[in-house]
Amino acid sequence: MRTIFEAELTQLGEDLVAMSRLVENAIADAGTALLTGDVALAEQVIAADRAVDAFEADLDERCIALLAQQQPVATDLRTVVTALRMSASLERMGDLARHVAEVARLRYPEKGFPHALETTFASMHDAANRVARRVTRLLSSHDLDVAEAIERDDDLLDALLEDVFAAMLAPEWTASAQETVDSTLLSRYFERFGDHGVSIARRIVYLVTGENAPAA
Amino acid sequence: MRTIFEAELTQLGEDLVAMSRLVENAIADAGTALLTGDVALAEQVIAADRAVDAFEADLDERCIALLAQQQPVATDLRTVVTALRMSASLERMGDLARHVAEVARLRYPEKGFPHALETTFASMHDAANRVARRVTRLLSSHDLDVAEAIERDDDLLDALLEDVFAAMLAPEWTASAQETVDSTLLSRYFERFGDHGVSIARRIVYLVTGENAPAA
Repeated sequence: MRTIFEAELTQLGEDLVAMSRLVENAIADAGTALLTGDVALAEQVIAADRAVDAFEADLDERCIALLAQQQPVATDLRTVVTALRMSASLERMGDLARHVAEVARLRYPEKGFPHALETTFASMHDAANRVARRVTRLLSSHDLDVAEAIERDDDLLDALLEDVFAAMLAPEWTASAQETVDSTLLSRYFERFGDHGVSIARRIVYLVTGENAPAA
Repeated sequence: MRTIFEAELTQLGEDLVAMSRLVENAIADAGTALLTGDVALAEQVIAADRAVDAFEADLDERCIALLAQQQPVATDLRTVVTALRMSASLERMGDLARHVAEVARLRYPEKGFPHALETTFASMHDAANRVARRVTRLLSSHDLDVAEAIERDDDLLDALLEDVFAAMLAPEWTASAQETVDSTLLSRYFERFGDHGVSIARRIVYLVTGENAPAA
C-alpha cells in the first residue's frame, strides 16, 4: 500500500513539473508573439492553454482520489494539499500567458504598446521566463536557492511594472488611449505571473522547512 | 467521532459565511470610497483586508487538520477540499476590494476615473455588491438559483468592463493617461471580483449536483 502511495506522490510531482513546462512554453511564446507581432504564435498560445486547464482538472481529481484512498497524514497530506494549490497557481499562470497572447493577437499588426516601452516589456518577458523556468526547476528539485531567485525575479517584475506606470504618467507620454490601456494590462499580466510564481515558491519552502516566508 | 466531524464541517461552513461577510463589507466600502472620494473609508478597507487573510490562513489549517484527523471520503472529502478552494477565492476577492480602495486612496482628492465613467463604475460597484451578497447567501443556503444569479451579475460585469474599454477608445475620450490607467485597473478589479464569485458558485453547484457547469 505504502509503495503504491509513494509511486502516486512521485507521479503527482512529475505531473506538476510537466504542467509547469507547458506554462514555461506559454509565457515564452506569448512574450515572443507580443514583442515580434507574431499572430500565428499568439494563436498557438491561446489554443494551447486548454491543455494547461485539462492538466489542472486531471491533477485535482487525482489529488482528491489520493486523499480518499490513501488517507495521508502529516507531510504526505500537506504534499497533496499543496499540489492542489500549486496546480491552481500554474493554471492561472497559463491564463496570464494566454492574456498576453490575446493582446498580441488583437493588436496585430500593431504591438499593443508604444516603441518607448519595448525594452521594458522585453525585460518583463525575460523576468517572467526566468520565473517560469525556475518554478519548473523548483518543483523538480525542491532547491530553496531557486525559491529565493524567484522572489528576486518577482521584485524585478514589480519594479518594471512601476517603470511602465511611470512612463505612462510622464509628460512626454503621447501614446494613444488604446496603447495606454494595453500597456496597463500587459504590465499587470506579467506582474501577476510573478506573484503566482512566488506563491508556488513559498508553498515549497513551507513544505521543505515547515516555515512560512514573511508575507508578501 | 462522526458527530464531532459533522460539527466541524458545520463550523467550517459558518466560517466561510463569516469570511464572505467580510468580503461583502470590503467591496461595499471600497466602491463607496472610490465613488465618493472617501479616503478614510478607503484606509479602513485596506486595513481590514488583514482580517480576511487571517481567516483564510485559519480556515486552511483547520481544513488540513480535518483531513488528517477525520480522513473523510466521498462528499465529505469534497466538501473540505472545496472549502479550501473557496477560502482562496474569498481571499482574492478581498484583495481586489483592497486594490479598489488603494486607487481611491492614491487619487484622493481626485477619484481616479473621469466623470464620464461615473455611472458605469457605480453599476460595476452595484453588480460586485450583488455578487458578494449572493456568495454569502449561496454559502449558507446552497440554493442553486443564487448561483445562477451570480453568473448573471458576472455577465453584467463583463459587459460593463467592455463599456469602460469602449469609452476609453472612443475619439471623444480626453481623460489623462493617469485616468486611463486607473480606469483600466478599476474595471479589471471589479470584473475579476465577479470571476471569483462565479468560481465559488460553480464549486457549490458541483458539490450539490455533482455536475460541472460549462467552462467559462
